[in-house]
Amino acid sequence: MSVRHSDVFDLLRDGEPRTRAQLAELTGLARSTVSARLDALMSLGLVVPYGGVSTGGRPPSLLAFNPSARVVAGIDLGATHATAALADLDGRVLAEHTDRLDIALGPDRVLGWVEQAIHRLLGERPEDGRDLAAIGIGLPGPVEHSTGRAINPPIMPGWDRYDVPGHVQRAFDVPVLVDNDVNVMALGERHAHLPDVDDVVFIKVGTGIGAGIISGGVLQRGAQGTAGDLGHVFVARGAEVSCRCGNQGCLEAIAAIPALAARVRDAGVEVSHDHEVVALVRGGNPHAVQAVRQAGRDLGEVLAALVNLVNPSVIVIGGSLAVAGEGLIAGIREIVYQRSLPLATEHLSVVPSRAGGLAGVTGAAALAIAHVLSPDAIDHAAVAE
Amino acid sequence: MSVRHSDVFDLLRDGEPRTRAQLAELTGLARSTVSARLDALMSLGLVVPYGGVSTGGRPPSLLAFNPSARVVAGIDLGATHATAALADLDGRVLAEHTDRLDIALGPDRVLGWVEQAIHRLLGERPEDGRDLAAIGIGLPGPVEHSTGRAINPPIMPGWDRYDVPGHVQRAFDVPVLVDNDVNVMALGERHAHLPDVDDVVFIKVGTGIGAGIISGGVLQRGAQGTAGDLGHVFVARGAEVSCRCGNQGCLEAIAAIPALAARVRDAGVEVSHDHEVVALVRGGNPHAVQAVRQAGRDLGEVLAALVNLVNPSVIVIGGSLAVAGEGLIAGIREIVYQRSLPLATEHLSVVPSRAGGLAGVTGAAALAIAHVLSPDAIDHAAVAE
Repeated sequence: MSVRHSDVFDLLRDGEPRTRAQLAELTGLARSTVSARLDALMSLGLVVPYGGVSTGGRPPSLLAFNPSARVVAGIDLGATHATAALADLDGRVLAEHTDRLDIALGPDRVLGWVEQAIHRLLGERPEDGRDLAAIGIGLPGPVEHSTGRAINPPIMPGWDRYDVPGHVQRAFDVPVLVDNDVNVMALGERHAHLPDVDDVVFIKVGTGIGAGIISGGVLQRGAQGTAGDLGHVFVARGAEVSCRCGNQGCLEAIAAIPALAARVRDAGVEVSHDHEVVALVRGGNPHAVQAVRQAGRDLGEVLAALVNLVNPSVIVIGGSLAVAGEGLIAGIREIVYQRSLPLATEHLSVVPSRAGGLAGVTGAAALAIAHVLSPDAIDHAAVAE
Repeated sequence: MSVRHSDVFDLLRDGEPRTRAQLAELTGLARSTVSARLDALMSLGLVVPYGGVSTGGRPPSLLAFNPSARVVAGIDLGATHATAALADLDGRVLAEHTDRLDIALGPDRVLGWVEQAIHRLLGERPEDGRDLAAIGIGLPGPVEHSTGRAINPPIMPGWDRYDVPGHVQRAFDVPVLVDNDVNVMALGERHAHLPDVDDVVFIKVGTGIGAGIISGGVLQRGAQGTAGDLGHVFVARGAEVSCRCGNQGCLEAIAAIPALAARVRDAGVEVSHDHEVVALVRGGNPHAVQAVRQAGRDLGEVLAALVNLVNPSVIVIGGSLAVAGEGLIAGIREIVYQRSLPLATEHLSVVPSRAGGLAGVTGAAALAIAHVLSPDAIDHAAVAE
């Protein structure tokens, strides 16, 4: 409620440069108050003179947000890969690095990789070294967002309730924000490609199936942080199929990559690693193509319910199975447009992810930036200066 | 971003009286600024001296929010009933009036009833007559919230895209807010009985089935305002049953009151009006009891998906079938606790509505109050004074 440093800053975040007089008029604050706030923001480097220092003639000096003031790290940890990136405060990726890495190696080894990757990226850009402001991390399991801990994650042995922020902060003394990987991908896709769309659902289809739900521009985590758990919704066609979660009939048990690989094997095709099914689809193997189309229809059954309940305007399909081609999305559309309400589907698009492999790190960086540039954080930093 | 009248007012809305000095300290505003804001708020009657005028000794004079400054009207229009209420700015119902009224009579007759009912309620309280600040209305169909028009409402012939606010404003020159009846009931239940719960889903089971979803404290309307449309989600057990929407397998077609009445009739019980099935359940008729329990299970199938996708902490069951006893909720719990993820159900309650018949008018009043006391409305009114 009080006059905050962030009040002046919020105006400048759109990137448009403004004079002190304009800022005073727009905020209704006294010139002296605006000057005090700007001094604090400039000492933090978040606001800088725009267009260089003037020499004579005293034109009105413009001030602007400086997205290069700090960098953040965005970390995307999948079941079998890890990507780390540095981004500026606009979320632009400055450098990134990917390795194959099994999340089941446990927190010590995986978070050790995270530390090394950030050090290495900062080392490639020594000018950014002192400026790391925060770290965002996406984990492939349910995360208690308030504490940054994974809770009963099915594919992450050794991670249950592990203090991820505490571990990472031993190496980097900055805020560490942790969320579920699909939530983070939803933030990344929206940040990079759908900034003006307020109701976006991002679906990841890979080893598992999950959704990140953004409604009214806000990521929906739900009461316990488990919102968007699409993979364990019941689908009648799978009623007899057991899921690793202990239930029967879960979407994931019939439509994720392991289930598809099993179906293609049953048809007599040799598949040594489950993920080869993606290449088989792209190569036009008829069994694989048919299996992916059916997975799209099964996913469509659950997405039809999601469309009725959540009413998004864009559904983005991402994850490793999404790159297998149009069959998956065609199957989804077939069922969703048939099953959901006309008013809900009239303006609905179902599209492939454009952020692709960078959705995770972009979203993790966006999570870190949202924290660094939050009103509370800015006021706190301005007072500490 | 600017210093607004609402900044001072927001502090007082919690009901705690404060001195000018306290308000200046809490807001960080200059004493003179706080005084100017308070003068405007006091001229609107929204802020008043607390505890009467002091006489000597000059104790610090306290100021407080005055919920009696204005009244709002809350209107709940169902398929076959209409309720109107007056409430103060805390949402306390001051007077209410209910009639049997068929929504299918069309907007002229139904909105004519609304006008008469408000006039009558204001007439019973002549001291409030000049103070009507806004009207909130819940309609039993999909509503485009931004325009207040019902869109393709299935049980409301003559209402499609009808300008409800425009019609009502011919009689009362105040803001008119319109929303779907179930959204409004969700707001009412939370306002009256769950003010500290941020993730609430309200389910109405009657002639139709719908949900109002509040996540993170915010009512979720979705991109087109159709979020929460539970009634037309597919349920395998109803795959062969046709719904009035044109699809097959909709939850509503097997679990709403007309479907239950048909089932009880098929068992040889005489049911002349569908709603008699509620009395049959309460009277212990075994066919009716069994049908309601099965309706609970069918509802549970869809709510299990909703729990995974939305992750609420409380699901409230309301509507005319909810008063039929414990069988409905028992059936829901049976399936939800079996099907949904442990982390999502660990802290989940499924409870009957406590607001009951007043949920609708309480929520419609809350919708009106939220508008009247919004920062924009207060600043606008303060400037107009």
